[in-house]
Amino acid sequence: MASVRIREAKEGDCGNILRLIRELAEYEKLLDQVKITEEALRADGFGENPFYHCLVAEILPAPGQPQGPCVVGYGLYYFIYSTWTGRNVYLEDIYVKPEYRGQGIGSKIIRKVAEVRRGMGLQARAWKSNGMVALDKGCSQFRLAVLDWNKRAMDLYKALGAQDLTEAEGWHSFRFEREAMRELAGK
Amino acid sequence: MASVRIREAKEGDCGNILRLIRELAEYEKLLDQVKITEEALRADGFGENPFYHCLVAEILPAPGQPQGPCVVGYGLYYFIYSTWTGRNVYLEDIYVKPEYRGQGIGSKIIRKVAEVRRGMGLQARAWKSNGMVALDKGCSQFRLAVLDWNKRAMDLYKALGAQDLTEAEGWHSFRFEREAMRELAGK
Repeated sequence: MASVRIREAKEGDCGNILRLIRELAEYEKLLDQVKITEEALRADGFGENPFYHCLVAEILPAPGQPQGPCVVGYGLYYFIYSTWTGRNVYLEDIYVKPEYRGQGIGSKIIRKVAEVRRGMGLQARAWKSNGMVALDKGCSQFRLAVLDWNKRAMDLYKALGAQDLTEAEGWHSFRFEREAMRELAGK
Repeated sequence: MASVRIREAKEGDCGNILRLIRELAEYEKLLDQVKITEEALRADGFGENPFYHCLVAEILPAPGQPQGPCVVGYGLYYFIYSTWTGRNVYLEDIYVKPEYRGQGIGSKIIRKVAEVRRGMGLQARAWKSNGMVALDKGCSQFRLAVLDWNKRAMDLYKALGAQDLTEAEGWHSFRFEREAMRELAGK
């Protein structure tokens, strides 16, 4: 019987992660917005001050089976800051391949994010090096964004205890693209 | 004639910044959610690996006037990561005191954020130390959130070139609070 393991991504996972990023964007009908490369994911996630952290879900083969573990999902997150509550975690992406849904893999990834270690720089070294969870680091909230037609995801997050702030308080997400940023910066 | 200066916040600004954070939350009718302290702002923004960066807007007195500069607004931001476009900037808060609005101070803060230097860790040291702007660091987008009844702010961001992604694509913001995180982490 195959089992699922959630673990921290390694640099060598970036090829698999990029394939899953593209699958998620395709599911979200926004694949044309994906410009990222495997090289950028390697450089930005695995240096001394990583811009992001990532968990992967892999299926472990049953003993005696010839194939190796197979990555079937990921959760990519980073640390943000709330002026109301301080240190927070943001889950930028969470995705499980369609044929592996309904087994609780998404929930496992979300639970793991609530337990993540910051693992970067002096502040992290000043904390205990093992067994620390986001809560222990004073991360008091955990945010993410979801498309309004993705009812399955919305229902999962609500079932796990999240609140829809766009619905409850009216928050809208705004974005300046590169061209708008260039104009703002006067270049 | 008094003039306005936008500059990077120093640790000694945290008292003023906290007062403005509370004013903004009061304006947003969400003051009860503010739990942050001046000590937390000092510790989290001014260590070796800061969790956030902050700009302040101050009014400089005319020559010969006895009073010192007066902080009347702020913009608090940090670096985030998009799996579609890589390094990004997020403007968590932007606020200008009511009696100083209509002078373009908010726009000045936003323009400055589009020009910020990351200024942290090895990756930053590997870049040129001066004159670098967010665009030069490969930050290709700049995100923020706004309440749907805050038409003045929405109109400003749109006039400066931002897109409302909640309206255009249906993105909703979700949040797990501390209690939900505890349950997720099984504590």
